[in-house]
Amino acid sequence: MSHLIHLVNARLVDGDQLVSKSLWIDSIAGVFIPPPLPDPASSVAAATSIDLQGRIVSPGFIDLQINGAYGFDFSEDATEEVEGKSYTQRYRDVRRKLIATGTTSFLPTMTSQLPQRYHRNLPLLGPSKSRDPFDGAESLGAHCEGPFFAHNRMGVHLPDAIISSGKTSEPTHVFETYGMNNLFDESYSFDGSISSNVRMITMAPERPGALDTITELSQKGIVMCIGHMAADYKQARAGIEVGATMITHLYNQMNPLHHRGPGPLGILGGAGDINPETEAKILGEGTSNTRPYFGIIADGHHVHPASVRLAHLMHPDGLILVTDALLLLGDEDGTIDWLTRRLTKKGISVTLEGTDIIAGSCVTLLQCINNFRKWTGASIPATLQAVTSRPAAVLKLGHVKGTLQAGADADFVVLSENHVPGQPASDLVVDEVWNFGTKVFDRNTS
Amino acid sequence: MSHLIHLVNARLVDGDQLVSKSLWIDSIAGVFIPPPLPDPASSVAAATSIDLQGRIVSPGFIDLQINGAYGFDFSEDATEEVEGKSYTQRYRDVRRKLIATGTTSFLPTMTSQLPQRYHRNLPLLGPSKSRDPFDGAESLGAHCEGPFFAHNRMGVHLPDAIISSGKTSEPTHVFETYGMNNLFDESYSFDGSISSNVRMITMAPERPGALDTITELSQKGIVMCIGHMAADYKQARAGIEVGATMITHLYNQMNPLHHRGPGPLGILGGAGDINPETEAKILGEGTSNTRPYFGIIADGHHVHPASVRLAHLMHPDGLILVTDALLLLGDEDGTIDWLTRRLTKKGISVTLEGTDIIAGSCVTLLQCINNFRKWTGASIPATLQAVTSRPAAVLKLGHVKGTLQAGADADFVVLSENHVPGQPASDLVVDEVWNFGTKVFDRNTS
Repeated sequence: MSHLIHLVNARLVDGDQLVSKSLWIDSIAGVFIPPPLPDPASSVAAATSIDLQGRIVSPGFIDLQINGAYGFDFSEDATEEVEGKSYTQRYRDVRRKLIATGTTSFLPTMTSQLPQRYHRNLPLLGPSKSRDPFDGAESLGAHCEGPFFAHNRMGVHLPDAIISSGKTSEPTHVFETYGMNNLFDESYSFDGSISSNVRMITMAPERPGALDTITELSQKGIVMCIGHMAADYKQARAGIEVGATMITHLYNQMNPLHHRGPGPLGILGGAGDINPETEAKILGEGTSNTRPYFGIIADGHHVHPASVRLAHLMHPDGLILVTDALLLLGDEDGTIDWLTRRLTKKGISVTLEGTDIIAGSCVTLLQCINNFRKWTGASIPATLQAVTSRPAAVLKLGHVKGTLQAGADADFVVLSENHVPGQPASDLVVDEVWNFGTKVFDRNTS
Repeated sequence: MSHLIHLVNARLVDGDQLVSKSLWIDSIAGVFIPPPLPDPASSVAAATSIDLQGRIVSPGFIDLQINGAYGFDFSEDATEEVEGKSYTQRYRDVRRKLIATGTTSFLPTMTSQLPQRYHRNLPLLGPSKSRDPFDGAESLGAHCEGPFFAHNRMGVHLPDAIISSGKTSEPTHVFETYGMNNLFDESYSFDGSISSNVRMITMAPERPGALDTITELSQKGIVMCIGHMAADYKQARAGIEVGATMITHLYNQMNPLHHRGPGPLGILGGAGDINPETEAKILGEGTSNTRPYFGIIADGHHVHPASVRLAHLMHPDGLILVTDALLLLGDEDGTIDWLTRRLTKKGISVTLEGTDIIAGSCVTLLQCINNFRKWTGASIPATLQAVTSRPAAVLKLGHVKGTLQAGADADFVVLSENHVPGQPASDLVVDEVWNFGTKVFDRNTS
């Protein structure tokens, strides 16, 4: 098999269109390449051609918020061995299982922890950097979800961790908690190739010092999200205005939309109020820049389908599907230990044992995609943007991830459609997953 | 002056465009006419031509929910004289003042009352039928807002009236309350020319019997709205599915949008849930038909500008601006008697004396239009649809009202723009109001 691969008879996701086009891959470089000149003398003649029989090719899925899967939690004690396997080995096993679901890159997400846990785990969860296709799903850096949350919006996060985060969210305090070395490193640059271990942070914007921290870290290239917050409309808006670009799992762990107190949802339409100057700003040039991206959990449990549909209508270009999956993803129903607590999985629901308190999800990004299409009627390409180009854009990696354009990493998924009678939309099925130009999953041979 | 009038150099509202076109009017018939053939022998040569100097011509505004104005309340005792004037005389005075604001037709709206009050007032509030331009704003029939409301969502409506409405919302009970003669009359027909005194009814869909009443009355051509309700998502949806076509003052007096209990707002995206059959229905053909119109009060007090913006994003084609004005519209700040209570006006706020309980508004439709443009950035023609063609469509009068097309009543407004420095949108100013082809208001001579 040649290192040059020519995928023919494929329908490619191109913006919100599906276009019949062929695709060229250099499997040694692991990237998409432009169509070579047809030169019989060249290796092009010997390129391996693969007929995809009209199936859909999407960039690999990107999950910006996943706390664990297949029995492994990214926040667990990295010093412990389980069944003779180190944290690093277990983490690699999970990445290999995860990629078979179509998720080729992700942000391993840590829930609220004590500083020591961040100092230990973040170096292990930073960008994979390896371009070995068989290393499984690629980490693009860690997502620190917490601990700088509102006390009444911490969900199932460890209260100790949040309390131990101290009185303020000031930069010095935040830096100590995660560890300077995890936030900044010498290879840091503005071109999107930031390689600090932490890629994304979710914090409540209304806490003392939070706006200073959001300002400083966003300027340094870390993606700042607002979430798990008690913020009202203006406080949420302030977070966006100083540099946060995303709202973490919209609706969950924030104030709801009230007609006289719109809360964080209010800023989806543009961060405006009745002040003429501000209105001029938000309705004038660059308005869209002040409309945040937002993650949403379309598992059928966290958010009602009609509310997902409304969020999509309110800001379709901002919507990003995230799983918020916990270690129970891929497990049987039942109750298991999770850090210092116990979780019960029943179907699509994960709750703290003996309560109805929701504790993350247990769905794959593919399930969210299929739910979303049924609930919104969004087209296949429009839906796939919510797990490919849009999350890549949030990470400022749109040139290398979440795209099929020449020069980008050849991480992609071959999808077929399963038409279920009576269902308003087909289910997408992952037939093949390719990582850095090499096929790493094939439904027919797995 | 000829009875043929030719308006030249005007910008006409045409869908969501402003088009430079001329407009022909037959002021005797009181309708717009097609451009006559230029025949020197004919009266056309003698047509009066009026240069509008590039100003905007909009169909006259239609207010679907206005309880009173200028000290007069449509629900007050029709047997009483005030300062020597009968109810009928006071009602006519108000219509003449109202038309100067650009509102050429409206639904006089009665708050929740005892049956006797409906029986007395509704015959006086029915369709004006008069085509005398100087009769003021034209009633297109009454809007009965109540009394069949949820007890915890009645706002400032008379509790007695709601309690006296009895235990159910069954058809027989509803018919008795308003009076059969006010709901149906022999000249009733399906072509939109329904001339029953009651044109619109707002009721809570979750009350016993309500769905039967909505079914029966909507089939008979009365526009049924759901509002002042305790309805959850499915109950609101049920109201729409049996024939209600509009939600009364969205956000106010209904359950808010909660992510796991979307409530009435949930149906703005289409009346769907996760049931595949229903999804197929709402996402398939005719989906838009199952998305209700909704009134919204853009007075800056009932609903936060950001929430108005989100409602506009959720369902722009369903949005209708209503004033929900009370008798304090046009009055000074202060406290006055209102039926059995007292109301305090302070700026744009009207509340029950000594409380912060909102009691209707005191704004004109023009003020709502200007607010809406600032808050949403909607274009002038797109905004004007929310007070012209859209309310006309709800009333099934799109062929005669809310349009400038030939054959329609020549009710229109000449608008100029007032550009306020620092403001994101200009303010529209009513220069002239025409009613049935005759100018009845001119800002320069009033």
